[in-house]
Amino acid sequence: MSEIVTAGILVIGDEILSGRTKDKNIGFIAEYLTNIGIDLKEVRVVADDEGAIIEALDALRNRYTYVFTTGGIGPTHDDITADSVAKAFRVGIHHHPDVVARFRERFGADANEARLRMARIPDGAELIESATILAPGFKIDNVIVMAGVPSIMQAMMDIITPRLKSGVRMLSDSVRANAREGDIGGPLRAIQEAHPDTSIGSYPFLDENGKPNTNVVVRSRDEARLQAAMDEVKAMLAGLNVAR
Amino acid sequence: MSEIVTAGILVIGDEILSGRTKDKNIGFIAEYLTNIGIDLKEVRVVADDEGAIIEALDALRNRYTYVFTTGGIGPTHDDITADSVAKAFRVGIHHHPDVVARFRERFGADANEARLRMARIPDGAELIESATILAPGFKIDNVIVMAGVPSIMQAMMDIITPRLKSGVRMLSDSVRANAREGDIGGPLRAIQEAHPDTSIGSYPFLDENGKPNTNVVVRSRDEARLQAAMDEVKAMLAGLNVAR
Repeated sequence: MSEIVTAGILVIGDEILSGRTKDKNIGFIAEYLTNIGIDLKEVRVVADDEGAIIEALDALRNRYTYVFTTGGIGPTHDDITADSVAKAFRVGIHHHPDVVARFRERFGADANEARLRMARIPDGAELIESATILAPGFKIDNVIVMAGVPSIMQAMMDIITPRLKSGVRMLSDSVRANAREGDIGGPLRAIQEAHPDTSIGSYPFLDENGKPNTNVVVRSRDEARLQAAMDEVKAMLAGLNVAR
Repeated sequence: MSEIVTAGILVIGDEILSGRTKDKNIGFIAEYLTNIGIDLKEVRVVADDEGAIIEALDALRNRYTYVFTTGGIGPTHDDITADSVAKAFRVGIHHHPDVVARFRERFGADANEARLRMARIPDGAELIESATILAPGFKIDNVIVMAGVPSIMQAMMDIITPRLKSGVRMLSDSVRANAREGDIGGPLRAIQEAHPDTSIGSYPFLDENGKPNTNVVVRSRDEARLQAAMDEVKAMLAGLNVAR
């Protein structure tokens, strides 16, 4: 049986905690990881604060296969992610010659100290870069450090994921219940208990007639087990709708 | 000098971690708390898993003035927030007579065991309820437990916040730099260091001409200090634009 591969996300940035910027990265990475068979187990959002970053990073990197961070790798004083990651790993941090060369080529005399901060990479890290990414991300041990700007973060995900191990993909199937969540809670619990190798979720929504309705989602890594549980869910729902 | 009031958010739900549902609550609560002078310090997202919920809740509630949770208070087997909160506080959990009465009035014979699960409230908690909220949230000690559905969560925020202490509101002012972040990183750092009672953030964006631009935000609880730092930022930017 294949290994279960797990992950945590660490979002770094005062602007998320103040509400000034609405995070768009958690949902994207969550969906991305699900699609490649990596189980996202936990997300944390912390401020641009060295102590907070290191504490959260250490908690997540010791617990999960991978940690994905977003934010704090720009050119200004509040961008302290790379330094904090280096401290967490107790390694040095230096200007990476390839990145410095690219910055000098791109900016000439404007390759100032602030810009060159973005070329500072913890010792031993591998770059996450492409021709269209100015300031690279990096991977050190099991920690993947990415930009906070969604388009750049998304490009970095595409670059780094082929280098990661992925697990057996979680399969899922969903059915519209045409019932209120409270109407199916009892039987759904019984089906969940009879199918412990699946995970059954129920998600209420208002349907096109403004009536409370529910989506039931069954998840499993095993196709046959998923199908068996879903068959029971559908039989239960059919009985319910006949009775109405 | 007034007390600093802090908060953490705990988002509970497998559907957020799988990416199936995109969280809309973190950004809303973050902005809401900023507006009432409460500093959001940390956010965590965990699965519908008792151990994970209790661990995160204990970490946050022992560290911050308030913890706001969203999700996991519905009628189905995967809604385990109320039970997990009761366990974290080592108190019992029982059907609340007022809530049971309302459910029986509303649902009659359909007030089944699943629905009545939503009436289970940890001992000693106060309800967060209104005529339009079917399943109440609750507050126990410094923990505020709310629904995951955004419209209901937002109604609960309006109900509970008058009962919370709020701090001195963080003031903020922003200016469009008309410069790339890397152009102002050096001088901005110097201004930040000269104004330690303010927090200066810089946020890159692509402007209407598709050119890299930057918003600079100065935050402080003291109006005069904010103004002094912002004056220096604006003077720095004016000098920069003259030079271009």
